[in-house]
Amino acid sequence: MSASPPSRETAESPTPLLVRAATGRPGPYPPVWFMRQAGRSLPEYRAVRAGTTMLDACRSPELITEITLQPVRRHGVDAAILFSDIVLPLVATGVGIDIVAGVGPVIDKPIRTAADIDRLRVLDAGDVPYVADAVRGLVRELGGTPLIGFAGAPFTLASYLVEGGPSRDHALTKAFMHAEPQLWHRLAGRLAEIARAYLTVQIDAGVQTVQLFDSWAGALSLADYTEFALPHSRAVLEPLAGRVPRIHFGVNTGELLPAMRAAGADVVGVDWRVPLDEAARRLGPGAVVQGNLDPALLGAGWPVIDAAVRRIVEQGRGASGHIFNLGHGVPPDTDPQVLTRIVELVHALEP
Amino acid sequence: MSASPPSRETAESPTPLLVRAATGRPGPYPPVWFMRQAGRSLPEYRAVRAGTTMLDACRSPELITEITLQPVRRHGVDAAILFSDIVLPLVATGVGIDIVAGVGPVIDKPIRTAADIDRLRVLDAGDVPYVADAVRGLVRELGGTPLIGFAGAPFTLASYLVEGGPSRDHALTKAFMHAEPQLWHRLAGRLAEIARAYLTVQIDAGVQTVQLFDSWAGALSLADYTEFALPHSRAVLEPLAGRVPRIHFGVNTGELLPAMRAAGADVVGVDWRVPLDEAARRLGPGAVVQGNLDPALLGAGWPVIDAAVRRIVEQGRGASGHIFNLGHGVPPDTDPQVLTRIVELVHALEP
Repeated sequence: MSASPPSRETAESPTPLLVRAATGRPGPYPPVWFMRQAGRSLPEYRAVRAGTTMLDACRSPELITEITLQPVRRHGVDAAILFSDIVLPLVATGVGIDIVAGVGPVIDKPIRTAADIDRLRVLDAGDVPYVADAVRGLVRELGGTPLIGFAGAPFTLASYLVEGGPSRDHALTKAFMHAEPQLWHRLAGRLAEIARAYLTVQIDAGVQTVQLFDSWAGALSLADYTEFALPHSRAVLEPLAGRVPRIHFGVNTGELLPAMRAAGADVVGVDWRVPLDEAARRLGPGAVVQGNLDPALLGAGWPVIDAAVRRIVEQGRGASGHIFNLGHGVPPDTDPQVLTRIVELVHALEP
Repeated sequence: MSASPPSRETAESPTPLLVRAATGRPGPYPPVWFMRQAGRSLPEYRAVRAGTTMLDACRSPELITEITLQPVRRHGVDAAILFSDIVLPLVATGVGIDIVAGVGPVIDKPIRTAADIDRLRVLDAGDVPYVADAVRGLVRELGGTPLIGFAGAPFTLASYLVEGGPSRDHALTKAFMHAEPQLWHRLAGRLAEIARAYLTVQIDAGVQTVQLFDSWAGALSLADYTEFALPHSRAVLEPLAGRVPRIHFGVNTGELLPAMRAAGADVVGVDWRVPLDEAARRLGPGAVVQGNLDPALLGAGWPVIDAAVRRIVEQGRGASGHIFNLGHGVPPDTDPQVLTRIVELVHALEP
């Protein structure tokens, strides 16, 4: 399969199916992509990454381009997502972060004081020339297949910075936001500026959709989310209204879905805990959902996956639009043939 | 404070406040206890555990007794919970398991085949004489303070056995239940027999309440929970109806609360993601709830905790009964003085 297959939706309309679905316009089937589709599940990814650190790969226009294209070539997905990492804009503005294999981002000096926060500077386009270069090249290469840009949401980025790395319970972060609300808002506000600037670089270079990853937002109660996270996610998303569709994603967010929409999302990501028709009900009229196959089922054998995909597509009809995806990222040990087969199945289902 | 303080509720009634609350009878304040109150947050716990493995401590009537009493002495909580571990009955029936500090239970040979499952034998009282001995002694020592017994629910126990240890995503377990439903039900059914037998030993020896820990149930969708977990939790809980109140606990269970009640619970544990009044609404008339302070707030300073405790007690009034607890276990680095102060605050609030 070539990098820019003559996609069915392009033949029908100049607007990619992903963008159509995200804006509530009907299409022949739900567009399909997979979070972390460009990653370790692909042997061709492991081959090009050999000998290169994650951060170096994220700063090489050639590697960004190649890795972003790999799942499009292999699976025929309806969207590419820029190969990068949510901590990349922090690294690009001088925060000492390493991405440790099997662990995740590890922060040299956790950020917990006013002085630490004030050292975080806002990103400008000159900090990430490789991103803009890669996006421009990718948009040309991808033809009718849209490119999704992304950033980490302020709460999720702040959790890494405060904890010093990945955390199960986000205990230091939650204690910090409650004990030092002014400092918290200063930190999250700064991270919102960085995320918005980073997404703007990507949009200016040509991405057709963006996703804000608030992966860990579901650790918060609705009250805490509303007070400490939502205003900052809104500061990222609202200024982008009308430029490209905005997807807002987290896991464990059953209680937060309407708030995540209210933050300025055109599409709300839903994990497998809430059926898409129920998610649409919670979100209210006109809601577009993304999701929600449990990644754990990718190892359960095709009959199980086939039934789950059909059920999810059916439940997605309860929303005003549906982008098919997993409820979280592709696990590294996933058989990539299973992903290809899921794309084929979604594309073949009766409208 | 002595091990058997002249508790206020005993002065008023022979029925402990915990049992009254669990059965929907009003009391002067919500009874308070903390999951993992007998544990590493206490210096006296670390002192008696020094040089003894977790499993050896769980098999010593003297250590079980001492450790179970420690938080009652120190905090004046309204209930003791037997010091043990959810894998103890598996160890006692011959499953090769070690509890590794900082990791959790590690299984020698993960259980994934019919032959593996058929080697799991049902527990009988003779397998855990130290538990019955400790419970009998504790009930005498505790006087008016009730003792809670507990077991791990079949899904949570099965996840450890199938994965080989703790898991973030329970991927092997979920794939197994979907791909091999007959084997899954055989495994979970056997674990239900073990859990029921283990709780029966504790009830026969005198515990006044039991809690079924389905800590990881919230990883499942409601559909999967209903098909794969609920029938087995019901097989544990329903035969115990009328003997002692049954608390059913998990985290991330916002979607599952009514199903967890339907499994045969008198009290449903609620984590911090769902306010207790909203949980009561989902659970329906007559519901009794347990929870739901976010353990992450224990490090946020007293003013934050004070406000959160007051809010939770107020929200708990929306249920037919409320047992005050955290939404999950006490973190090891918790300042124990904070826990004592929470008990004092809940006891002092106006009814």
